[in-house]
Amino acid sequence: MALRNAVQMICYPNRLGNNLKDLHTVIERHFSDAIGGVHILPFFPSNADAGFSPLTHKEVDPEYGDWDDIERISSKYDLCCDVTVNHISDESAEFLDFVAKGYESEYADLFVHVDQFGDITPDDLAKIHIRKEKEPFRRVDFADGSTGRVWCTFTEHQIDLNYESELTYQLMENYIGFLAQRGVKLFRLDAFGYTTKRIGTSCFLVEPDVYRNLDWINGVAHIHGAEVLPEVHDHSSYQYAISRRNMHPYGFALPPLLLFSLLDANSVYLKNWLRMCPRNMVTVLDTHDGICIPDVEGVLPEEKIRALIDNISSRSADPILRRSAANIHSVGAIYQLTCTFYDALMRNDDAYLAARAIQFFSPGIPQVYYVGLLAGCNDNELMEATGELRDINRHYYSLEEIDEAVEQPVVKRLLALMRFRSNYPAFDGHFELGYSNDSSVAMAWRHGDYYCHLFVDLNFNTATITYLDEESLAECRLQC
Amino acid sequence: MALRNAVQMICYPNRLGNNLKDLHTVIERHFSDAIGGVHILPFFPSNADAGFSPLTHKEVDPEYGDWDDIERISSKYDLCCDVTVNHISDESAEFLDFVAKGYESEYADLFVHVDQFGDITPDDLAKIHIRKEKEPFRRVDFADGSTGRVWCTFTEHQIDLNYESELTYQLMENYIGFLAQRGVKLFRLDAFGYTTKRIGTSCFLVEPDVYRNLDWINGVAHIHGAEVLPEVHDHSSYQYAISRRNMHPYGFALPPLLLFSLLDANSVYLKNWLRMCPRNMVTVLDTHDGICIPDVEGVLPEEKIRALIDNISSRSADPILRRSAANIHSVGAIYQLTCTFYDALMRNDDAYLAARAIQFFSPGIPQVYYVGLLAGCNDNELMEATGELRDINRHYYSLEEIDEAVEQPVVKRLLALMRFRSNYPAFDGHFELGYSNDSSVAMAWRHGDYYCHLFVDLNFNTATITYLDEESLAECRLQC
Repeated sequence: MALRNAVQMICYPNRLGNNLKDLHTVIERHFSDAIGGVHILPFFPSNADAGFSPLTHKEVDPEYGDWDDIERISSKYDLCCDVTVNHISDESAEFLDFVAKGYESEYADLFVHVDQFGDITPDDLAKIHIRKEKEPFRRVDFADGSTGRVWCTFTEHQIDLNYESELTYQLMENYIGFLAQRGVKLFRLDAFGYTTKRIGTSCFLVEPDVYRNLDWINGVAHIHGAEVLPEVHDHSSYQYAISRRNMHPYGFALPPLLLFSLLDANSVYLKNWLRMCPRNMVTVLDTHDGICIPDVEGVLPEEKIRALIDNISSRSADPILRRSAANIHSVGAIYQLTCTFYDALMRNDDAYLAARAIQFFSPGIPQVYYVGLLAGCNDNELMEATGELRDINRHYYSLEEIDEAVEQPVVKRLLALMRFRSNYPAFDGHFELGYSNDSSVAMAWRHGDYYCHLFVDLNFNTATITYLDEESLAECRLQC
Repeated sequence: MALRNAVQMICYPNRLGNNLKDLHTVIERHFSDAIGGVHILPFFPSNADAGFSPLTHKEVDPEYGDWDDIERISSKYDLCCDVTVNHISDESAEFLDFVAKGYESEYADLFVHVDQFGDITPDDLAKIHIRKEKEPFRRVDFADGSTGRVWCTFTEHQIDLNYESELTYQLMENYIGFLAQRGVKLFRLDAFGYTTKRIGTSCFLVEPDVYRNLDWINGVAHIHGAEVLPEVHDHSSYQYAISRRNMHPYGFALPPLLLFSLLDANSVYLKNWLRMCPRNMVTVLDTHDGICIPDVEGVLPEEKIRALIDNISSRSADPILRRSAANIHSVGAIYQLTCTFYDALMRNDDAYLAARAIQFFSPGIPQVYYVGLLAGCNDNELMEATGELRDINRHYYSLEEIDEAVEQPVVKRLLALMRFRSNYPAFDGHFELGYSNDSSVAMAWRHGDYYCHLFVDLNFNTATITYLDEESLAECRLQC
């Protein structure tokens, strides 16, 4: 029932090949012995935000395939999928019913009626943590000609759900139960931080409400034999709060921290973090979002973060900015850097493999984003075509491109490393940080007789694993 | 068998009155309903460092009293005592035997023979984390006229123990078993970070050796029904590593963090820390040492730490400097500020009570140092007389002075707060960080029907506790 302690791949339903059938083919052809799980980004019918504006969680977008395609994958790999707990599409049956019937709709309470809050002063508004360049509200034109206003944090298509109403909990319970039946083992809780609306606050991660919501979802998931992965980009302290509540926190500090460590050949901050990071993390170096800066604040000193931003910006698209700095303890205005991880490391194979080796030896379950898995470079063409900055790291791979990409030496080396991480038993034991000087890292795992050790020299970007062979117990060596 | 979840007082055996009998009288007369435990600083015969150079841990210095005096206290309160795991006095029977018999002594292996390491290069030496302005070695003049060298991190009287020898483990097991018999429930492991000698490293907190040593001591303590409190001042990541190993970490980040929060009326960093701090801490605002700066690095930004140092230095003695910066990721050269906590808060009663209220609502068992308990001010006279900077916060109180000191309004308020913390049952439940703006803090504890909530406004230094009365379940209010 517990998640496999193996690498997971993050991918879209339609960017490794055209659809879920292609995705299955690709996995079986190239990655089956290297991964133990797959996080398929939203495969539901959706009308915005690359899948993150689902009309429902109970249908597969027919363009991608059907539930058989999903279950073919979930029967063999741990399946992770997104639940957009914060909102639902404005084309969902529930919202359309609300538009048609107004406040008489049985779904009316599913949405956050802005006018119920009375006067919202400019001061109140200024405090709200927003994600677009306007207030997070949207007008609703009802069928009868009257109008209303609902909360709407992201695009105008994504209507926020009301966590003060029983209806929202019923909807979520319904979705989670349904998806668990289809084999979902890990629910990624997209943008959960915005589920707390309390005027006079940032309306983001409002405590203790946010933990009430998370604890409830976690309970439902556990009843269905699944676990949860709440997604939040902010000070790392939130990841500890998640870990302590028996949910998997993301190790979002790691991508910028590793970039700094490799580009500056400095392991001091990395080792501080490794000593204290939650032990039940899901680690990533890249995701469908950019490289997030708030997660590393307090882990790296501010001037190091500034230098890192300057360094990586030179080979990135425009950064994604923070819209509201009021409630963020921020380094400048940068929210995300837009660059593939391989490009961020200047397409240096050794540095890239060293980064992955450190990720794989860090506590938790490692995820590898499909572009990173194929050592993909910035896709400026797609980004310019769509106008979406994050599309620089969301390439559409054809089956032929994939066959070629896996032949790159860097990908072959990465797959060998993934096979080791997914299969060597020591990772079920405990983590040890060894002694190393300020420009190297020594990490180890020990489980009974099994022992493996990673040494990375950050000046030379060499990563060497030594481990005891499972059968002969002879000492072996894997040069990453 | 578990520690009481109540305030502990830290004190010397001879600075609240003249000896342990006086100490017992003082506790019973003034503090018995406010505390659940007492940390008595070393009461063993010692020839240096205010008790921290013990000849043995199996005798009470007759000047302070005897084991009956200790057991009178340990029978009623959880007793915490120091084990100087790193070293033993040069007047100990073991070292005297070594001096008399040289390497033939049965105790020879108890000490770290520097010459066994072969050539120690200047490079090696420069890496060692030292605590005095010379190398951490000492000449031994044997009875037969020959000489040797032993490791000696602190004063020339404190001879380091050899954790590569079985003898050291036997000695520690003997001490711990003996002290547990006398009622010790919590062993403070003084300066354990120096127990790892590996040439070519800092010889300080060398991983994974340091955890091997700690885990072993923790195991012995648990066999005897006691717990351990390892003492280390460094990056907060070490406290997480301790917590994860089922030992109590010190919350050493809290004193400078709270001083910053109160002096700057800024709760942002404090709340980040509260969200992530280990849950099984022992918290302090003051101890027999100064206010340590390395513990808050990475928790507060560097420029905030600098400003805090400047602020507090204006009413402190000279700071204690770091001797070796090579292996420390440091803000300047400051190791400890020398000032009572009450003076650091400009003797502002409201700010001081607010600080204590936040400490008492932070996760873990709170300790209050005797000078802080009596709202003591800097003792420049003692410091100048002894030349020991830390003596500015180590006043010798006569019984008459104590009778007077407890009549101060600030002390009466503190004792009321301590009684609440030591007796209200909600603290056995779980911690909640509530919503508050950037210049206030809201913290709560909930355990079954019991609930208590603290709100601190950092601009006005007001701290208000609301709680449900145990019997009537009516809401009550305690203005700190």
